[in-house]
Amino acid sequence: VHLALSEISRALPSDALITSGAALDAYASDASEVAPVTPLAVAKVASTEEISAVLRACNRHGVPVTSRGAGTSRVGGAVPAAGGLVISFERMNRVKHIEANDGLAVVEPGVVTGELHRSVESAGAFFPPDPNSWESCTIGGNVATNAGGPRALGYGVTRDYVLGLEAVTADGTVLKVGRRTRKGVTGYDLVSLLVGSEGTLAVVSEITLGVVRKPEAVGTIVIVLDDESRVHPCLNALRSHGVALRCAELLDSHTLALVRPKAGLALPDRAKALLIVEVDGDASTVEAMVERAGNVALESGALDVLVATEGTRREALWKSRRELSHALRRAAAKKLSEDVVVPPSKLGELIAFCRRTTETSPVRMPAYGHAGDGNLHVNLLWDDPELDVEPQVRRLFEETIRLGGTLSGEHGIGLLKAPYLPLEQSPDVIALERRIKDVFDPNRILNPGKIFADERRHGDC
Amino acid sequence: VHLALSEISRALPSDALITSGAALDAYASDASEVAPVTPLAVAKVASTEEISAVLRACNRHGVPVTSRGAGTSRVGGAVPAAGGLVISFERMNRVKHIEANDGLAVVEPGVVTGELHRSVESAGAFFPPDPNSWESCTIGGNVATNAGGPRALGYGVTRDYVLGLEAVTADGTVLKVGRRTRKGVTGYDLVSLLVGSEGTLAVVSEITLGVVRKPEAVGTIVIVLDDESRVHPCLNALRSHGVALRCAELLDSHTLALVRPKAGLALPDRAKALLIVEVDGDASTVEAMVERAGNVALESGALDVLVATEGTRREALWKSRRELSHALRRAAAKKLSEDVVVPPSKLGELIAFCRRTTETSPVRMPAYGHAGDGNLHVNLLWDDPELDVEPQVRRLFEETIRLGGTLSGEHGIGLLKAPYLPLEQSPDVIALERRIKDVFDPNRILNPGKIFADERRHGDC
Repeated sequence: VHLALSEISRALPSDALITSGAALDAYASDASEVAPVTPLAVAKVASTEEISAVLRACNRHGVPVTSRGAGTSRVGGAVPAAGGLVISFERMNRVKHIEANDGLAVVEPGVVTGELHRSVESAGAFFPPDPNSWESCTIGGNVATNAGGPRALGYGVTRDYVLGLEAVTADGTVLKVGRRTRKGVTGYDLVSLLVGSEGTLAVVSEITLGVVRKPEAVGTIVIVLDDESRVHPCLNALRSHGVALRCAELLDSHTLALVRPKAGLALPDRAKALLIVEVDGDASTVEAMVERAGNVALESGALDVLVATEGTRREALWKSRRELSHALRRAAAKKLSEDVVVPPSKLGELIAFCRRTTETSPVRMPAYGHAGDGNLHVNLLWDDPELDVEPQVRRLFEETIRLGGTLSGEHGIGLLKAPYLPLEQSPDVIALERRIKDVFDPNRILNPGKIFADERRHGDC
Repeated sequence: VHLALSEISRALPSDALITSGAALDAYASDASEVAPVTPLAVAKVASTEEISAVLRACNRHGVPVTSRGAGTSRVGGAVPAAGGLVISFERMNRVKHIEANDGLAVVEPGVVTGELHRSVESAGAFFPPDPNSWESCTIGGNVATNAGGPRALGYGVTRDYVLGLEAVTADGTVLKVGRRTRKGVTGYDLVSLLVGSEGTLAVVSEITLGVVRKPEAVGTIVIVLDDESRVHPCLNALRSHGVALRCAELLDSHTLALVRPKAGLALPDRAKALLIVEVDGDASTVEAMVERAGNVALESGALDVLVATEGTRREALWKSRRELSHALRRAAAKKLSEDVVVPPSKLGELIAFCRRTTETSPVRMPAYGHAGDGNLHVNLLWDDPELDVEPQVRRLFEETIRLGGTLSGEHGIGLLKAPYLPLEQSPDVIALERRIKDVFDPNRILNPGKIFADERRHGDC
């Protein structure tokens, strides 16, 4: 490590390399329950060249490297679990340029996603991905995890907006992959391979994003249901009546009970689930679709519908959804948050499974989130700090796979889900992924331990 | 080869393996200008197990393998350039099942794309990708090339609809990658890596596709322009007025002159370019958008607009676009068709380049196609069979790259564009792609010579 650090210190300004003191602790943990690991050093890189210099040194001396945006990972993705060095992007936070005419934005990885939203919108365009942490997370982290958010239902996920990347492989080689055009089939799709690879293949240094036209108007509708089993039929009815939703967020009976006191919504006592749905488009279409959606929902058995097309009213309707994470944290001594996905027709079965777990085990299992694409944030809440919830976590994943689903819709695998990867992928697929990792990172210095559980860890050297 | 064939003949029904005779010639060429190469054998596979058996034998004995759908490649992708064996999918042409409720269709690679369109639509859903050869090409070929088509502007390309794949690597290993849900971030995106890899990484045996809701109504508008330079401003005006186009097809002055006599459209003499644009959605939105589009086009300087929202009228308006490929073939003794992409704001510069080439060289260069996403089918027409047009092809690609574009929007690289790959990708990127190929296909038996020009060819053994 000392050899690597002395090489790095020659390549970076003196205030860019932290090698001791309490400042390192700020890079030890993320937004997950993973135990903190203080890195040996933090490099606050300011350019592609500096990233390349850091990686060359670490690769030569076998020092693990964990890239870090804002540390909002829910699965330990930003925890430097193998020690080593953290590359921090706080100095690479510029929106370089926006070319609204060609639907492009070129940015550094450290740009906060909310900042990107505002920059793009002030240029008359729209960047749809909206992970819940958008006010603090960075676009680099969104690229690493292929982040989603409510609007993924209508607009797709981060990968759908990444046209090109500049990235540095473990040996310091700078690659420009992808393109500046929406279409293009030259060579292999290395962009899609890097997006969602959780910092295990390369370190991204510049991102070329596609942006779209900002919709003229948005309408928000809260659909009040008397039973969770009505969720999928209601969404189906909306779709078959031609209501194209840009998001469809669920609060199940458990989460609804938690936020009801603070939600500020006049809900009938019989309300047992909420769907918050949105449509967008030009103003007249939105008006027509909101009316259609309300009528279809009532015909399919909703207790009530609450509608808003104007900003402050819309914000009030979203308040109950925003409250959730905090309310859940207060509701138990211990909390784990998963983000499984099932085919939409299996939503009812997944929610029923959560209900059974709550009723038959010491773990309560509220579920909420992106019901439209079958991606639910299933939480585990429990009070006894000694309780081992691993059996419940495993059963949730097994049930998800049985229903034809996947372990993660947007958080990634990170450290926390790595032990469960074999539930979804065969040994042959995992072996192939590891061989692809070896192409980019033969010495296995990039975010070791993430995605693949039993990867050989490098000791501190 | 003989050892491989005798192993294969034990694994396949006797009528499934062709090893001699004129029947082999049907597999020698595709829809490109690449010289035919008759394969040593053709295996008409009927199952994943048969594909695996064929690959195991060929891999063991170093026999090149070229997968073939309907042979509609424009770049030699289906020509067995290195000899060896062709895997043909004519016996794997089933739509296995359609789950409209979850937006899924599971199909074999040999399904003709037009057949897939009809099956999906009869189940009330919609599969958007519509390459021009959709009546004959197969979905397996579409996956191999990441095919597009006019509707790519509004709906994206084939890759955007492939959720999961079953694929067989060179050594016969069967992999299931991807998922049955729209969202999912478990492991690396091997689906996107395989889509567009032109049969060089694995042989796809089953495809899980996402399908969407069929739009209620479609409106088609032909916009008549007096100058090609008005194309981009007109498209820009439509976008900034909130007209979301699902396609925007250009006929430049050259192609318009060719099809004008047969197009059956009353066009003013001053017409020098046509844009055929479409909107879709529910009936009332389409009506409003067609009116808005017409008005915006006229305000931005169009000579005329012709409108159709009803099927037979729409078909009549598309006729001039459909005529193009035939008309161009008749217009010269020799023809090459490229499919470069530039950022939309550079369309004018690309068309001007084509015009200059036509005026200053023996090669005429009409351009038409998917103007909305900057993907033009630039044709080279010439009459002297002795003329070497390589300098013009190279200059076209150099100009495309200079304008920030890419060599291919939907045809792929194949054999024909392989020599030009280094114009777009650095040696480091190409070296990385080759190393990824080696992970899937260490003996380099899969479609050798495609994408990468100087790849070691295997002799007939």
